[in-house]
Amino acid sequence: MSARCTIALDAMGGDNAPQMVLDGIARIHARHPHARFRLFGDQARLRPQLDASPELRAVCEIVHTDEVITNDDKPSQALRKGRQSSMRLAIDAVAEGEADGVVSAGNTGALMAMSKVVLRTLPGIDRPAIASAFPTERGETVVLDLGANIDCGAEHLVQFAVMGANFAHSVLGRARPLVGLLNVGVEEMKGNEKVKAAAETLRAATDLAFDFHGFVEGDDIAKGTVDVVVTDGFTGNVALKASEGVARLMTTFLRISFRRSLMSKLGYLLARPALNAFRERLDPRYYNGGVFLGLKGVVVKSHGGTDAVGFAAALEIAIDMVRDRVIERIAVDFQRFAESVSPDPQPAPVTP
Amino acid sequence: MSARCTIALDAMGGDNAPQMVLDGIARIHARHPHARFRLFGDQARLRPQLDASPELRAVCEIVHTDEVITNDDKPSQALRKGRQSSMRLAIDAVAEGEADGVVSAGNTGALMAMSKVVLRTLPGIDRPAIASAFPTERGETVVLDLGANIDCGAEHLVQFAVMGANFAHSVLGRARPLVGLLNVGVEEMKGNEKVKAAAETLRAATDLAFDFHGFVEGDDIAKGTVDVVVTDGFTGNVALKASEGVARLMTTFLRISFRRSLMSKLGYLLARPALNAFRERLDPRYYNGGVFLGLKGVVVKSHGGTDAVGFAAALEIAIDMVRDRVIERIAVDFQRFAESVSPDPQPAPVTP
Repeated sequence: MSARCTIALDAMGGDNAPQMVLDGIARIHARHPHARFRLFGDQARLRPQLDASPELRAVCEIVHTDEVITNDDKPSQALRKGRQSSMRLAIDAVAEGEADGVVSAGNTGALMAMSKVVLRTLPGIDRPAIASAFPTERGETVVLDLGANIDCGAEHLVQFAVMGANFAHSVLGRARPLVGLLNVGVEEMKGNEKVKAAAETLRAATDLAFDFHGFVEGDDIAKGTVDVVVTDGFTGNVALKASEGVARLMTTFLRISFRRSLMSKLGYLLARPALNAFRERLDPRYYNGGVFLGLKGVVVKSHGGTDAVGFAAALEIAIDMVRDRVIERIAVDFQRFAESVSPDPQPAPVTP
Repeated sequence: MSARCTIALDAMGGDNAPQMVLDGIARIHARHPHARFRLFGDQARLRPQLDASPELRAVCEIVHTDEVITNDDKPSQALRKGRQSSMRLAIDAVAEGEADGVVSAGNTGALMAMSKVVLRTLPGIDRPAIASAFPTERGETVVLDLGANIDCGAEHLVQFAVMGANFAHSVLGRARPLVGLLNVGVEEMKGNEKVKAAAETLRAATDLAFDFHGFVEGDDIAKGTVDVVVTDGFTGNVALKASEGVARLMTTFLRISFRRSLMSKLGYLLARPALNAFRERLDPRYYNGGVFLGLKGVVVKSHGGTDAVGFAAALEIAIDMVRDRVIERIAVDFQRFAESVSPDPQPAPVTP
């Protein structure tokens, strides 16, 4: 099942651009025969590669621009001066209906600022959130917000729950996702006022497209206790990076251990295929793609340092989201949710 | 260098008490010949073991009580009804000068509540924090607060920095610890108002017994970028548990990988000594001991499910803290710090 869709690409964003962008498309286009790609960037660097590959040429189109947003550009600078940049033109393509979604491995702050200004947020959503899938004991779990909203209130956590559930539906294929609120304990009385108030709203809501599990703790992310873990951008960002740090530390310690003796080196050689499978299972490239949820358009941020494998993963997330109409689904859910939690509108008083 | 000290033990707290308490003492008493232990608990269960071991009998003294705080007791219940409990009597021993510190593997909330009421906080410190050491690429890093203070302001983060630095001094042996504030980015403009204000105070302070590094991110914990990572109890608790979750996930995936084939099983056998070293390096038992800092007394909370190895680690933390006079050091630092950040007291206006 692969509906026709067009993805706009910031072909110049990322440390290995545009090579990893083209190689990323090459990795997946056979699996998504109806997907088309509009590449915004330097045609002098893009054209020769397309000319050399009839397969790529058949699914890609180049829109030339010389301008590029760098990682040093502040979001405000990017907004003011980057109107002809590859990133901005790719976002514009979504706003103008020429593309169904955009993928960029460029400057995160600039991509968020431009997406907010150009695409705007959906009705009922104050701020976009960044979501991503994490590997767990039971498959994958979506966590949001990962850093877009440093200070946020209970109402934002509730919005993240609705958005995250829809993302889990499309990307993880969960029919009715289970959503948990990240806290320091699972009992109702635990936590700060913000998470308590958000939990109360979610418990009281009657017409949700997901099941609210209640509170979860930090280790529930890796356990896969729920499909979606909701938290503010400060805590989510720290949890994400602390997890990455521990994963790297353990990999380093493991490598050092195998080098300890001749026997352990031999053991490593024998177990290598198994250890490669272990590494692949946690390979961050397969979890590449921070999705900006809450906008009127699909926006996927690939890690800046990724390669073709990682960029391909980000492309597939965008294609899945378009195919599953995530944006329309979030909008509908929000409408329904707003009606379920608001009291019936009072009839206007009749003035004599 | 091992000064005389007495540690009061809640001998009945923890899943494996009192056995792991006695076995824990047996593991370390030879390394700390001048340490003495006052065991509060059921003498019918403690006495036979002491009678069987002349070595233990020489360093232990039993103070009998039948009462025990269970894990189901709320802190308020424990305060009201637990005055004769093994936990409470052990804390009382510190308050009355009969012991230099207390170690318990019992109910965390009850231990914190009783410690606050009985021992009280040091002048200038509003709330105790829970600190613990984490394994890192460069040794160990102290992180606090791990969950005692869910909502806290900039002034509390500053207090945690002073307390954490003293703990790192005594337990990690850092002469002048490097302290970082946990944030979502390292640039000065990043983060919420709370961390920005705390950073400003720490940057402005001139007479600190530690060096302020500035902001650190979640992955800096495992990297060992600084000796002490300061954060609020909500974020710290989530970071700790998320890290534990990832460590468990990777261990599970690794075990599954080694079972994949005959070759990988053989590889495991050859590399087993090396893998045991890897496991030991991350063994949570060696990082057992959440320290309650900011009280007028040394209080160490051992993990409830730990065994003799883990309980011994908690005992050694308490002994190190007593030997290094951490409480007095924190009190002095606080006095000095308070003077360095306050403006000079204004002379009283002379009234004619």
